[in-house]
Amino acid sequence: MRIGELSRRTGVPVPTIKYYVREGLLPAGELSSPNQASYGPGHERRLRLIRALLEVGGLSLAAIGEVLSAVDDKEQPVHKLLGVVANRLVPGGAGEEDEETDLAREEVARLIEARGWNTSASSPAGEALAGALAALARVGHADFASVLDVYADAAERVAAADLAYVGRRGAAREGMVESVVVGTVLGDAMLASLRRLAQTDASSRTYGRS
Amino acid sequence: MRIGELSRRTGVPVPTIKYYVREGLLPAGELSSPNQASYGPGHERRLRLIRALLEVGGLSLAAIGEVLSAVDDKEQPVHKLLGVVANRLVPGGAGEEDEETDLAREEVARLIEARGWNTSASSPAGEALAGALAALARVGHADFASVLDVYADAAERVAAADLAYVGRRGAAREGMVESVVVGTVLGDAMLASLRRLAQTDASSRTYGRS
Repeated sequence: MRIGELSRRTGVPVPTIKYYVREGLLPAGELSSPNQASYGPGHERRLRLIRALLEVGGLSLAAIGEVLSAVDDKEQPVHKLLGVVANRLVPGGAGEEDEETDLAREEVARLIEARGWNTSASSPAGEALAGALAALARVGHADFASVLDVYADAAERVAAADLAYVGRRGAAREGMVESVVVGTVLGDAMLASLRRLAQTDASSRTYGRS
Repeated sequence: MRIGELSRRTGVPVPTIKYYVREGLLPAGELSSPNQASYGPGHERRLRLIRALLEVGGLSLAAIGEVLSAVDDKEQPVHKLLGVVANRLVPGGAGEEDEETDLAREEVARLIEARGWNTSASSPAGEALAGALAALARVGHADFASVLDVYADAAERVAAADLAYVGRRGAAREGMVESVVVGTVLGDAMLASLRRLAQTDASSRTYGRS
């Protein structure tokens, strides 16, 4: 197809497509005549992936470049590829260096070991969890961490459903990455709003008459 | 205590305390002499609540004013008070008005009815959920909604733990509101990072050898 049709099918304007090609995010089309390039389904899929990373994942073009390199590096096993993506989608780390953060990091390491999770406390997600626990301690709510196990149980169930979804969407590397981005970012939003709805319900049952 | 000690105990600078008093967020101290005011534990508690709403909840001073009115209005039942807070802590609504949003709203209403949740699809959290579902549909991942029930189960468990925590922290209205703010906002961060950690673990089990 010509660049105009690629633009129409993906909703990405022609100048933007040309920009992605110049930046090396999208392979150039195949020259069918000296001044006309032809694009195929691979270009369309790649464009949709870029859009998902950009609009849904909120990634910078530099970060998108990194993710795409991992997608294209077929030596990179799927698990490592999904790890690159997941780590790109974690906002901020622990942020501060204080006693609360040190204690929180130890707590994260203990949790990961107790659960037998094959992951590391020093990963971006581990650091983000330590950051949240340290922030709780700083506002005098360290004991909110008592709910950590319930949260971790819930996270395990949700993650299993996420992975099953990624598997159902098929085994193409680009499709998997897109599913992970979309599911991770929009899944967070879904989970947060469901938690509010369930809290409202639980609160009305507990305090409805007070 | 004098304003200097109140400042030291809460970490809030004296000019900021004076500003909160002028804005009506904090009651004025009791005049112990013509140019000296005295502050008590009630002021300290209120200041900590303002700080939690501001720094942890990310609320505007106007929104904080609304929450504090609900705290002070003893006619307002606890359940309604917690509802005011929860609704203030939901970022954005569905945002757009299109076919995807209409369909998503219907799906949210069905979910709430099926779960028997005592809450409304048109609440801010219901609208936020519809927004996430509509965004999934727009990027061609409408079928991610197939995990909705697993997410809703997880949200119910987490919400029950949240409410139990609020109850454990005691029955004072200010303390409850603080617990809800802290638990809601930092709880979202905790849950999101735990989900990433659990995903990494699940992914290594599923794709570790591919």
